[in-house]
Amino acid sequence: MYRSNTCGELRLADVGKMVTLCGWLQKSRDLGGMTFIDLRDRFGLTQLAFNMETNAAVCEQARKLGREYVLQVKGLVKERESKNQQMPTGEIEIIVDEIVILNEAILPPFTIEDNTDGGDDLRMKYRYLDIRRNPVRNNLLLRHQVAKQTRAYLDNQNFVEVETPVLIKSTPEGARDFVVPSRMNPGQFYALPQSPQTFKQLLMVGGIDRYYQIVKCFRDEDLRADRQPEFTQIDCEMSFVEQEDVLNMFEGLVKHLFAMVKSIEIPQVPRMSYADAMKYYGSDKPDTRFEMKFVELNSPEADLVSGKGFKVFEDAELVVGICAKNAAHYTRKQLDELTDFIKRPQIGATGLVYARVNEDGSIKSSVDKFYDEAALAEWAKAFGAEPNDLILILAGGADKTRKALNELRLEMGTRLDLRDASVYSCLWVTDFPLLEFIEEDGRYFAMHHPFTAPKPEDIKLLEEGKLGEIRANAYDLVINGVEVGGGSVRIFNKQLQAKMFEVLGFSKEEAQVQFGFLMNAFEYGAPPHAGIAFGFDRLCSLFGGENSIRDFIAFPKNNSGRDVMIDAPAAIDNKQLNELGIAIKNV
Amino acid sequence: MYRSNTCGELRLADVGKMVTLCGWLQKSRDLGGMTFIDLRDRFGLTQLAFNMETNAAVCEQARKLGREYVLQVKGLVKERESKNQQMPTGEIEIIVDEIVILNEAILPPFTIEDNTDGGDDLRMKYRYLDIRRNPVRNNLLLRHQVAKQTRAYLDNQNFVEVETPVLIKSTPEGARDFVVPSRMNPGQFYALPQSPQTFKQLLMVGGIDRYYQIVKCFRDEDLRADRQPEFTQIDCEMSFVEQEDVLNMFEGLVKHLFAMVKSIEIPQVPRMSYADAMKYYGSDKPDTRFEMKFVELNSPEADLVSGKGFKVFEDAELVVGICAKNAAHYTRKQLDELTDFIKRPQIGATGLVYARVNEDGSIKSSVDKFYDEAALAEWAKAFGAEPNDLILILAGGADKTRKALNELRLEMGTRLDLRDASVYSCLWVTDFPLLEFIEEDGRYFAMHHPFTAPKPEDIKLLEEGKLGEIRANAYDLVINGVEVGGGSVRIFNKQLQAKMFEVLGFSKEEAQVQFGFLMNAFEYGAPPHAGIAFGFDRLCSLFGGENSIRDFIAFPKNNSGRDVMIDAPAAIDNKQLNELGIAIKNV
Repeated sequence: MYRSNTCGELRLADVGKMVTLCGWLQKSRDLGGMTFIDLRDRFGLTQLAFNMETNAAVCEQARKLGREYVLQVKGLVKERESKNQQMPTGEIEIIVDEIVILNEAILPPFTIEDNTDGGDDLRMKYRYLDIRRNPVRNNLLLRHQVAKQTRAYLDNQNFVEVETPVLIKSTPEGARDFVVPSRMNPGQFYALPQSPQTFKQLLMVGGIDRYYQIVKCFRDEDLRADRQPEFTQIDCEMSFVEQEDVLNMFEGLVKHLFAMVKSIEIPQVPRMSYADAMKYYGSDKPDTRFEMKFVELNSPEADLVSGKGFKVFEDAELVVGICAKNAAHYTRKQLDELTDFIKRPQIGATGLVYARVNEDGSIKSSVDKFYDEAALAEWAKAFGAEPNDLILILAGGADKTRKALNELRLEMGTRLDLRDASVYSCLWVTDFPLLEFIEEDGRYFAMHHPFTAPKPEDIKLLEEGKLGEIRANAYDLVINGVEVGGGSVRIFNKQLQAKMFEVLGFSKEEAQVQFGFLMNAFEYGAPPHAGIAFGFDRLCSLFGGENSIRDFIAFPKNNSGRDVMIDAPAAIDNKQLNELGIAIKNV
Repeated sequence: MYRSNTCGELRLADVGKMVTLCGWLQKSRDLGGMTFIDLRDRFGLTQLAFNMETNAAVCEQARKLGREYVLQVKGLVKERESKNQQMPTGEIEIIVDEIVILNEAILPPFTIEDNTDGGDDLRMKYRYLDIRRNPVRNNLLLRHQVAKQTRAYLDNQNFVEVETPVLIKSTPEGARDFVVPSRMNPGQFYALPQSPQTFKQLLMVGGIDRYYQIVKCFRDEDLRADRQPEFTQIDCEMSFVEQEDVLNMFEGLVKHLFAMVKSIEIPQVPRMSYADAMKYYGSDKPDTRFEMKFVELNSPEADLVSGKGFKVFEDAELVVGICAKNAAHYTRKQLDELTDFIKRPQIGATGLVYARVNEDGSIKSSVDKFYDEAALAEWAKAFGAEPNDLILILAGGADKTRKALNELRLEMGTRLDLRDASVYSCLWVTDFPLLEFIEEDGRYFAMHHPFTAPKPEDIKLLEEGKLGEIRANAYDLVINGVEVGGGSVRIFNKQLQAKMFEVLGFSKEEAQVQFGFLMNAFEYGAPPHAGIAFGFDRLCSLFGGENSIRDFIAFPKNNSGRDVMIDAPAAIDNKQLNELGIAIKNV
């Protein structure tokens, strides 16, 4: 035993005890007669005191120690004269008798403080030092808690944790696979799983009934800002259930996690159809921490824009806006900023119309010359706008305008402080389309994956070839505008599964080669089943109140998929390549 | 909800309830007037009863159902006339009103029974059906329990579960790596981890203090009977600890697992040095369920074989034997079998000498003509042999003879029923050699891995070049002759680590390229640390009382590293190869 106590546990009640602590030197202050050191370990900080008068030798030794030295100290716990109520151990200090330098340390490339001076690149390269900082360590501890509470809930609900294989088979559907050349089977490759989808379905065929796993998945995609080539899922599947059962079960999980990890009681999670989410928020993952719903001004039922000579609105497929409460004070400059925002190429709207409801109820709009006070009053009524509210309107093609207005809504939410990271709003989005048409490929793709079941009442549309109209028994859990989880009821009928593959453009042979084992399995008695998967890294970052997942992963990779700490990937030697029967092509 | 209850839960107290059950048809018996079906799900079996007189339509329907059909049935819980006390639900049956066929099933390729008629290959190919069988499902449930209890213990001991990356960097030391070509970094490869060794050490440098993970690891080895290319470890590391602390902590884990999973109280785990294990058992993983320790007959202190003219013994480096209690009745034929056993090429001994202690105390030996009654009596005394015991002796080169006698000892243990799979004997083996000399490479290799610390008192031998004599602070946990876990105190001093790499034949440059990030990390203040890893698959198979790990893995691979169910590995298409910038060489 190197220590009798950790640096986080000593209190007034321990005064008078001889203790041995170990840790890193966080900070030292030499006040002449006295030297103080803050000793740090995972559990906290403890102040060490050295007195030049009573123990000059040890005090001299203490003065020479550098930051991040690893120390073992023995001494007496004493009540502090000037207590620090900010620190759990702030009422005591250790009068040190003996120091052992367990390891020296050179100067770290950045400060080991909550707010470090290290940039992202430096922090990634020296991740082992970054982990010493409270914010990063606390994120890892939070992640542990989320995993632990996830297991506690699911164990309690009779789910069985089953490990599925990592070395599996490549499938051309979906994102790109990482592959692994097989030395024992020359010319052949394993693939790393993008998800354990087929295996969990096979476990249902195998009668496991309720399965879960917190599992690494892999996707060889061009990395966007916050994607990782390896990521972690909470992966679940249940037998003999309908969509309603799955939603209830996992609403229970989410409530449990919020209660246990964040001490927050989440109310019943509301549900919204995909169609409504698109209509009212222009997004299948609306941030429902704030309302600001879309209002359409040129719907056939209530056209409030036509016949006034404003061609932009009259020609538009969709005229739609939002009402920002208490934002009528927005200046010309602020409105110009918003116009610039929605005109950015990523958003691509062409212009922004506003209407301010003044304190006296009068309305001032950028399109006054087309719409008189009475017309504007009708708008205000449609938006439920009150004095001091600001109406913002976009027009154009329906899909594009909804997307642009979604961005504008989120921007206004941010500007008006409606998106507090410590407030959580959960939402089930349901009834997703089964298939989506991808223009550049000229065919339909599965919106979730090819095993998702259509709604029973929509199966006839499959026969009728109305592929775009079929709704799926598929659902996403959205928290604060982030898609945290998603899943579906699965097809468990072999004929329907075969039909799906046909619709997705697989020949019978291709379907057999790729998914034959699953279709065969369905011949032997598949139960009705459904499941869900949660993005675990993302869930942890939400619980941590941060946007980036990277600091919730112990050793993340950068945007080029590199681990800059260990310098991977790297060249391998020719002997390895030869054994694997592969060669590197000139690139 | 497809069901109101599972097939395992209804009891006499439920009589009179209307219930809905779902499951697979296990078995049906048509007795003319009555038809009975056993309906199976993960939770058990429930008997369904159909009466031709009272409900002919449903009874007719029931008669047509095949094995493994997936059914939903509604009916009344009734007390059975002839109860089956072997079944938890054996006091009730369901009088079925309505059957819904959820899915039909074709005839399975083997019977879904505890003792199936399916061979290994067939069971692997249809693993999803194999998992329906009680023994396989129970193994998976056991595995879940072992994982759950492992986490419960370690969580309680303040260990943090941290996920380490799967896409890492290849190292030439140790076994062969699986590699993953990087599309975004052409010509470069990730490697899959053989263990998270360096990452867990970096977590200690990062101050995580106590780390654990139940984690997949990968080794591209030629597979022996019971090896898998991907396997699971319980991986742990602790800071500010000595060997004693680690042994106590993980002895605690093992006791906890036996108590919680098997309801067995394990006594304090004895410890044995590597040197003693080799001397008394000829193995670094002795099966201590039975004694039968080695006794040397030609040690310098007590030479009981020389000077009698038996050249085999006189020329032998080592004459060593075991005493099998109550085996003196062994016949000529049985002794010949043992001789054949030790002469097999895998064992390679040249002959077996025996000495029987008869009931009257007289001794009969195969080398009577060299050793008289008095000499044999001295042997018997050395072995502590009593009437009815059988002494078995081998001679030859020390290492080879010990290995052969280890095999013979295990064989005798098996023959004499001393190796009951439901009895558990745990042992710590300590003080392993730090380095071992591999003849064919002409150099020393790390016996555990290059980060293992020598015993402090043996560090001087490193300087003196007595490499083979250095003992490590390394330890294995052995249960019933199986190495279940192993670990070591780590080097945390940069200079000592550099010296180790030098001894292992790494140039400074090679060491820097391979392990530079770890050696650099050690510059910034590494704490003393130590760890251990347990073979999780193996641990589960031990708890399950079986030798093979394969049936404790949901989807195992065969001895060629193939998953015969999904048919992986497999060829990938040229587009994928081109994107990865690799080509398959003609083989």
